[in-house]
Amino acid sequence: MESPIESYLRHLHAELSEQRDGTVYTPGGAPSLANPDAFGICLATTDGQVYEVGDTRTEFTLQSLSKVFTYAVALSDLGFDAVDAKVDVEPSGDPFNEISLAAGTGRPDNAMINAGALAVTSLIKGSGGKSAIKRIVRVLSDCAGRELAVSEPVFTAERRHSDRNHALAYLLSSFDIIEDDPTTVLENYLRHCSVQVTCRDLAIMAATLANGGTNPVTDVQALDLAPVERVLSVMMTSGMYDDAGAWLTAVGMPAKSGVGGGTLAVLPGQLGVAVFSPRIDAHGNSVRGSLASQRLSQELELHFVRAARSGRSTIRSSTDITELPSGIRHPDETAATLTEHGHRARVIELSGDLMFAGTEATLREVCALGDEVELVILDLRRVDKVGAVALRMLSTLKHSLAAAGRELLLIGTEGTAAETLADLGPHVRAFGTRSAAVEYAENVLIGRYSPELRVQTPIAAADSPALSALDREDAEAVAALMEPRACDDGEIVRRVGQRFGGVFFIVSGRISTIVPGPTNERVKLTTLSAGMTFGELALGSADRQETTEKADGPVQLQVLTSEAIAQLELDDPRLAVELWKALTRDAYTRVDQYLRETAVRIRD
Amino acid sequence: MESPIESYLRHLHAELSEQRDGTVYTPGGAPSLANPDAFGICLATTDGQVYEVGDTRTEFTLQSLSKVFTYAVALSDLGFDAVDAKVDVEPSGDPFNEISLAAGTGRPDNAMINAGALAVTSLIKGSGGKSAIKRIVRVLSDCAGRELAVSEPVFTAERRHSDRNHALAYLLSSFDIIEDDPTTVLENYLRHCSVQVTCRDLAIMAATLANGGTNPVTDVQALDLAPVERVLSVMMTSGMYDDAGAWLTAVGMPAKSGVGGGTLAVLPGQLGVAVFSPRIDAHGNSVRGSLASQRLSQELELHFVRAARSGRSTIRSSTDITELPSGIRHPDETAATLTEHGHRARVIELSGDLMFAGTEATLREVCALGDEVELVILDLRRVDKVGAVALRMLSTLKHSLAAAGRELLLIGTEGTAAETLADLGPHVRAFGTRSAAVEYAENVLIGRYSPELRVQTPIAAADSPALSALDREDAEAVAALMEPRACDDGEIVRRVGQRFGGVFFIVSGRISTIVPGPTNERVKLTTLSAGMTFGELALGSADRQETTEKADGPVQLQVLTSEAIAQLELDDPRLAVELWKALTRDAYTRVDQYLRETAVRIRD
Repeated sequence: MESPIESYLRHLHAELSEQRDGTVYTPGGAPSLANPDAFGICLATTDGQVYEVGDTRTEFTLQSLSKVFTYAVALSDLGFDAVDAKVDVEPSGDPFNEISLAAGTGRPDNAMINAGALAVTSLIKGSGGKSAIKRIVRVLSDCAGRELAVSEPVFTAERRHSDRNHALAYLLSSFDIIEDDPTTVLENYLRHCSVQVTCRDLAIMAATLANGGTNPVTDVQALDLAPVERVLSVMMTSGMYDDAGAWLTAVGMPAKSGVGGGTLAVLPGQLGVAVFSPRIDAHGNSVRGSLASQRLSQELELHFVRAARSGRSTIRSSTDITELPSGIRHPDETAATLTEHGHRARVIELSGDLMFAGTEATLREVCALGDEVELVILDLRRVDKVGAVALRMLSTLKHSLAAAGRELLLIGTEGTAAETLADLGPHVRAFGTRSAAVEYAENVLIGRYSPELRVQTPIAAADSPALSALDREDAEAVAALMEPRACDDGEIVRRVGQRFGGVFFIVSGRISTIVPGPTNERVKLTTLSAGMTFGELALGSADRQETTEKADGPVQLQVLTSEAIAQLELDDPRLAVELWKALTRDAYTRVDQYLRETAVRIRD
Repeated sequence: MESPIESYLRHLHAELSEQRDGTVYTPGGAPSLANPDAFGICLATTDGQVYEVGDTRTEFTLQSLSKVFTYAVALSDLGFDAVDAKVDVEPSGDPFNEISLAAGTGRPDNAMINAGALAVTSLIKGSGGKSAIKRIVRVLSDCAGRELAVSEPVFTAERRHSDRNHALAYLLSSFDIIEDDPTTVLENYLRHCSVQVTCRDLAIMAATLANGGTNPVTDVQALDLAPVERVLSVMMTSGMYDDAGAWLTAVGMPAKSGVGGGTLAVLPGQLGVAVFSPRIDAHGNSVRGSLASQRLSQELELHFVRAARSGRSTIRSSTDITELPSGIRHPDETAATLTEHGHRARVIELSGDLMFAGTEATLREVCALGDEVELVILDLRRVDKVGAVALRMLSTLKHSLAAAGRELLLIGTEGTAAETLADLGPHVRAFGTRSAAVEYAENVLIGRYSPELRVQTPIAAADSPALSALDREDAEAVAALMEPRACDDGEIVRRVGQRFGGVFFIVSGRISTIVPGPTNERVKLTTLSAGMTFGELALGSADRQETTEKADGPVQLQVLTSEAIAQLELDDPRLAVELWKALTRDAYTRVDQYLRETAVRIRD
């Protein structure tokens, strides 16, 4: 099933494709190799999921995007103090190619402008037999998760038209900000700007930054955490040329653009975003890159002040309803239907906030389910906040599921997320408890896969599973000792605290088992139906009834009273042995069921 | 018990009290009313918890701190576009009292500098019979959760020495940025700057911003979400005078200072921080306020790029061990000890990241436990990342608990958070499974409260709880039919799939029950000890053994074989009835136990 995130990205891509403002960057006016209409958008999460749409596999040059990574390398190599002595961390508010150095010291404002990046490049030295540029390309490759390379033709073209940066390098040298040969520094700088990447690479590089320096796809640690945090801080104010404040208010993610058409943005801890579109504006930012970043930030709620509220661990469990059934004791045939088809209903238990990260994880879980899962139940009782992104995406999900004849159900109590999600429309059923939702799902599956079982047919006491260990003749003989009893709707048949009064066989109708809850409210424990028994459980609790049994609608019972059992023991000890043996087996069948449930918990 | 967060704040406060740089702000050189040594630090979480140390109840004037709230009010009143037309969102890099307006338009760079705040003040009008200043004080009061007021003496002093701001107001008027009478605007501006707050107020105001505009203590919605998000974005680059970039890299929280000595910082979604210390530096920032903010950011990991990783919903459950026992079937006396004393061991299940917010929630939960809880077990199996703040705080917690004779235990598998937390030192026990940790806790409690039960005394089959429904003579008669069997350590007594072979009574030693796990690895389900039985469960699963039973050390058994039972049914039907009745009761006792566990799950 297509994820709502994929379809959202497709729509965004189609919409922004209409935008054709801006011009393609051409070093020194040489004809550009890039297709001006190329357009790709890619998201990569910190757990390695990649969503991509459009031209995400087309190569282009990093240009200024390399500044992000060289700054991190320099910080790792020399430590913060040594780098800070050469390059400040203040937003400059200047255009990317402005020759602007601090009065007196010549210290560039930050590492995201050309002057700062030249200074940073000069700080990175060769080591272990590897040249500085090889070390930089190694880090870039580790961040991307594949081997990247410098484009020599691009480098050559850039080298021919680098007078302005050459001047800047000499100026920096005059202030002792650059200590190496300015021309060598310039060439190293132009080389790392000429590394070729795809939009997908760039998204994974951004996700590596979001993930504290570890590539979430390859699990390779490309950068250390502390430099990554510093780089993101500086990107926040200085990554996008000229209008740091506008970017911070509108997008609110640390970001960087390159004149090659690439834009990357980082939501720390959660995801990396990359856009590729070669047409750039007067500031040097990709026109579609800026627009897409704004739209993604607003519509997926990625702005740092909003995203900071969201947690990562959202999916607490995902189980099919055979693993944690409703608690209704079903007759054998019905139970068999549920054993066979229970995997068609799945409960996904969520916690934390449903902002982008939580929503994305949820959608991924649901979309990964096979088509055989016909009922998808989201348990929202532990969800705190529901973002607009969750409403939109879950609405899409509901429609996609419905189109395939599948259903989305919600569990949540009043005043919780489920209520917010009621906005999803009248076609989303919401339940107050897990067992109510699962009971509904069980009934749907029984109706769909064993429609004949839906009709409640009476089951004679002799046919009850509790007596199935007896042969026919013995079962009939035991049944002959029972007293019939009819109950009206709501009638209490057994009450908490009563003494053992025999075994009650349900011939037709339904019985609710109720226990006092922790604060003395009543908790409905199970629903019993025809063929099932109750009353015998008191044998396990000092002969005292621990639950109350109440008729749910009219009920027909057959009662094997404790007096009748005592009489049987005197009159026919052999049959009494068989009866007790059958009851023992029935009890252990239930122990067995509970142990299986316990096993689920162990797996958890 | 004092929270490690409180003790951390006490130490930080004591340490920074040594710092006496800076001078107290005095409007126009008038003697200041503030005690220059006053110093308070306060944290308020978005769920309403307040931590405070020092002079947190001393009043001082908001000064520039009011700019944050007036900007939000103007954005709410007029919408973003109308406000943006008058005031930009770019960092200015200018001192707070600089007369700096954009060339040509006169538009102030942002709302956090005096020019911007004057423009913002002029946009706020009276409404519903309330003057503009009354409306502003109302919002400030709602954010603080108590009635705030303008200090008329401070206002009067400020008014006397406001020539520079008066000039600024006229300049803004000349550019039509201010349309009202400049003097009226100036006076409104000076009035909201003269509102009196305490450090505690300021922390709650900051927490209100962190909480999206709703005061987390009073639950009153003081501001709308969208303006709050915009204000926080602008504070991120422009809240602290002069060095936006340095603040963003070192502290990384949206923040604002006032020359009255107050500093507030906001971690969106998580908490508000306030510091009060009147000595300010040349920029107008409180010296201790800046230092404390840096220390708190670093030591509690509040920097936005780090904090963005952390979730809020950290405590999944907190249960005492009687609610979810280890699964060991204890003899009656031992079980009684655990029922009585089980509340002394508590399992707290965590999920998400243990950064500041998660750690704070965990510490709060642990510190709220009564002293009778002697064993605190943190289940870390679902914890993703553990921050340095968690290590430090849990280490303090461990020592505080140990000092009171209480113990901290951890549950976690290899490669998870528990391993990181092994750094807490050799005295923290870590367990791979919940049941292993609970089993340890059960043994500690039994040893402490029923030391006599620790000695494993053999229990004759006739004394087994399984036969307790029989009278003495019958029990002895049944026991006489059993065959003795001795097992060596590791010996398999029963194996999955074997037919029902009778009931096995443990006279001495321990038996492990093992079930195949989901991926066929073996899962230890329970440990059985003297007095307990096994083998009878096969009666509930088509007479087939569903578990493997293995001797844990040397074991003495008495076996009532299925042949012996069959012979008894022929020879002595009455005793056979009694035997089966006893086994039925025993089975239902176990059903009853499982139902009680189920009930816990319902409460969950």
